Amino acid sequence: MELLVDKTPLPEGIDERLSRQLTFLIEVDRLKAVLRQSPLAAAERRENDAEHSWHLAMMVVLLAEHSDEPIDVGHTVELVLVHDLVEIYAGDTPLYDTGAGHDQDARERAAADALFGLLPVDQAERVRALWDEFEERRTPEAKFAKAMDRLQPLLLNWMARGGTWKTPGVTTGDIRERKAVIGDASAGLWQAGQRLIDEGAARGWSRPDAGG
Amino acid sequence: MELLVDKTPLPEGIDERLSRQLTFLIEVDRLKAVLRQSPLAAAERRENDAEHSWHLAMMVVLLAEHSDEPIDVGHTVELVLVHDLVEIYAGDTPLYDTGAGHDQDARERAAADALFGLLPVDQAERVRALWDEFEERRTPEAKFAKAMDRLQPLLLNWMARGGTWKTPGVTTGDIRERKAVIGDASAGLWQAGQRLIDEGAARGWSRPDAGG
Repeated sequence: MELLVDKTPLPEGIDERLSRQLTFLIEVDRLKAVLRQSPLAAAERRENDAEHSWHLAMMVVLLAEHSDEPIDVGHTVELVLVHDLVEIYAGDTPLYDTGAGHDQDARERAAADALFGLLPVDQAERVRALWDEFEERRTPEAKFAKAMDRLQPLLLNWMARGGTWKTPGVTTGDIRERKAVIGDASAGLWQAGQRLIDEGAARGWSRPDAGG
Repeated sequence: MELLVDKTPLPEGIDERLSRQLTFLIEVDRLKAVLRQSPLAAAERRENDAEHSWHLAMMVVLLAEHSDEPIDVGHTVELVLVHDLVEIYAGDTPLYDTGAGHDQDARERAAADALFGLLPVDQAERVRALWDEFEERRTPEAKFAKAMDRLQPLLLNWMARGGTWKTPGVTTGDIRERKAVIGDASAGLWQAGQRLIDEGAARGWSRPDAGG
């Protein structure tokens, strides 16, 4: 596998641990080139994973008070900063793409091994633990991080008057089902999320359920 | 001033404090549309402020051990997450553009008032305090955050074999002078930064100083 840094190797005279850290930090520049489905509110293009991760971090800092359980804000921010890194090698799996999900776990685990393995061992283990914690969604911090990951595109879709809600085959019920994890972290934020979904549906920005 | 949210106002039934928070979080989507001079390592385009802010946050998490003084990692991450927000209204001032700097302070202060004022008062004060702390560069956390802000484009310019080092009129000495603040936070990282600058100069990626 060719790394970004292989194009312009770091100069001699930087100690090995720092070289590994800088190699990783250069490689993750690729997160800026992983496109998501969500349209930006501020420009006529799709969002990328780095922008998305920054946005989630801002949301954690400003919305943490809405968590139903106390959370460590700094730790939750770390979870969202790293949560999409594996997509650098595994790609983004759209929320409403049910077909792509079947080998997603295996692809993302292989990506985690390759990418985090660039770091010094202690940091590779630490970043891997953060990613595992996010994926497992058991700690209050991981639940809140996941809620931000679901709430943020809801805001962007609202601003776009539909956005990915208009994905063929997706109904208002599908949206509600996939967003319900917000309620695992915050009753208040899920209430607001449901207002956005319901009002969007009422305005025709998502498709009614069969028979609904 | 028209806010992004004015294009698609939030629905009724969301409490006022949360509405203010969401209004702000939608407005800061604009950070993704503020372009910097730095070229990405991973794609053929310039970086934007949201991507840059995410990258700095990752650097804080992974490079904090190189700080010469102990730092609170979570707090330092918050400083870098918010440090460029004022550019949403004030624009990016390129590091090597000496002309644009003269009214930069006034423009950025006005931008901070307008943008942070969207938040509930307690949070507006908190974000303003974070931005002031970053700008004043007195705390160990602010010094380290600033060092990341200077080291990250150094990595991107290295990868681009010059990048903004090739700005007309800029010499290797100018680069060294503007990057020296890295040394206020970390002797080790500044040593590595100097290796990048010196080796880049040796390869002809920056312009020698007059008489140098």
